Amino acid sequence: MPPVSAGPRPSAAEINAFIDAQFANVHEGSGRLVVEAAGDRAARVRMHQDARMIRPGGTVSGPSMFKLADFSVYVAILAELGFAAQQALTSSMTINFLARPHPADMIAEVRLIKLGRRLAVAEVQLYSEGEAAMVAQATSTYVLPNGGR
Amino acid sequence: MPPVSAGPRPSAAEINAFIDAQFANVHEGSGRLVVEAAGDRAARVRMHQDARMIRPGGTVSGPSMFKLADFSVYVAILAELGFAAQQALTSSMTINFLARPHPADMIAEVRLIKLGRRLAVAEVQLYSEGEAAMVAQATSTYVLPNGGR
Amino acid sequence: MPPVSAGPRPSAAEINAFIDAQFANVHEGSGRLVVEAAGDRAARVRMHQDARMIRPGGTVSGPSMFKLADFSVYVAILAELGFAAQQALTSSMTINFLARPHPADMIAEVRLIKLGRRLAVAEVQLYSEGEAAMVAQATSTYVLPNGGR
Amino acid sequence: MPPVSAGPRPSAAEINAFIDAQFANVHEGSGRLVVEAAGDRAARVRMHQDARMIRPGGTVSGPSMFKLADFSVYVAILAELGFAAQQALTSSMTINFLARPHPADMIAEVRLIKLGRRLAVAEVQLYSEGEAAMVAQATSTYVLPNGGR
Repeated sequence: MPPVSAGPRPSAAEINAFIDAQFANVHEGSGRLVVEAAGDRAARVRMHQDARMIRPGGTVSGPSMFKLADFSVYVAILAELGFAAQQALTSSMTINFLARPHPADMIAEVRLIKLGRRLAVAEVQLYSEGEAAMVAQATSTYVLPNGGR
Repeated sequence: MPPVSAGPRPSAAEINAFIDAQFANVHEGSGRLVVEAAGDRAARVRMHQDARMIRPGGTVSGPSMFKLADFSVYVAILAELGFAAQQALTSSMTINFLARPHPADMIAEVRLIKLGRRLAVAEVQLYSEGEAAMVAQATSTYVLPNGGR
Repeated sequence: MPPVSAGPRPSAAEINAFIDAQFANVHEGSGRLVVEAAGDRAARVRMHQDARMIRPGGTVSGPSMFKLADFSVYVAILAELGFAAQQALTSSMTINFLARPHPADMIAEVRLIKLGRRLAVAEVQLYSEGEAAMVAQATSTYVLPNGGR
Repeated sequence: MPPVSAGPRPSAAEINAFIDAQFANVHEGSGRLVVEAAGDRAARVRMHQDARMIRPGGTVSGPSMFKLADFSVYVAILAELGFAAQQALTSSMTINFLARPHPADMIAEVRLIKLGRRLAVAEVQLYSEGEAAMVAQATSTYVLPNGGR
């Protein structure tokens, strides 16, 4: 069976277009998710500020941060393996919340720390726009479609 | 400082009223979250089916399952410690996705496996309405407000 | 390729004999590990008390509890899939330490909450001999050898 | 109550001397653990190769890697907060095994990504001596003794 990596590596813009065509409701319940950079087993994704993801006290909700982290891993996998890997599925995620972010755009920086035949493992760091301190950190395992790499 | 557990233990109905008054946007981006039972360091919470949480292929999104799990832990803490614990914050969560659920209401069954002075730890099992097999499993740590128990 | 589950299901005694023959150094650095029950996608394993696993203040070391949890998952997989699955490998584990156990035998109660073709996921509860309160809780993912189930 | 950080920051050599005096049996069951560098909320710790931590097939055991990761977080906390923090306790750890390391010394590179009043969170990367690819990755939460920082 040919590996799913047979496909060409899409750009950030191509991934954004793919998401809007295939997974438009990933944007539901929070601000819009936009891939800013992708490649070299890494990606950067922005989640735009939106009132729907703000909790009492003016902090960004944990589930919206989880969504950003999970989405950013999917993006890094697509960027490496191409759209043939679109059936990749989250197997597990551990997320640590380190600080309570003020309302702002949030940025995920993700890198793949393993890319095997069956599984990919990624490490994600979440930041608030314009702040140096990390807000949350996550590690995640995805199951790759048959072949993987 | 008096422990936060000084308050009376609220019922499921009282917790639902509190959430709708204080955290109404927890319902954003997925189906409505409703506490069905709470007490004895445990709770059951239902997330109603909603098109916004369905992904291509007809499966429930991972972030909506994370939200249900995280919310159910918060509910179990409120049910045990009262609304004085409303400042409890998620510190970490690990979630394992075990199967791809069909569109349906989802049910979280949560129990507190540690309730310390500073930290609570909970274990959550997620099910699809009417299905016996577990769909996802999570463990989570919350930081309790000063006092805790 | 035939699934690894083709083999007969070994008993607790057969698993103990297999471990002593193949993995004798799993007993290093802590008390002896003994399978007490195995079957129905679950197992119970005892780690005998031993001075080497006691830390200052008289508590059982975290790494020895990790070892007990990890080993018990392996045992549950062998009990279900037979020795053909002996190449199963730990992919990840999350462990939560809930209390500081006094020196005593420790018991792991494990059950498989997913047994897929590629991955098994297990939930483990650790207890001190004779105490009702859970001491630690873990979830773990194993990668199964080709075939799995 | 004075914060535990009131003490002076110990050097790597001082931490090694403290461990050998207070926690000598941390070296049980694997090769010797030696702090090579500590400071700036980070540390590097070496686990010397030893036959007791090698499993069939010639790979380093998961529990010995867990021990190295857990110990390295403790070292980074001592290096930052001083020996007044010696009662810091592991609350949770998630470890992802990325590759099967050959028998060799193993190196942990740890950094503290949160240092709060109650909790410290650390990220750990494990390598085999002389190999570029990461072998395992972990995140861990420690509960700090009263005061913390």
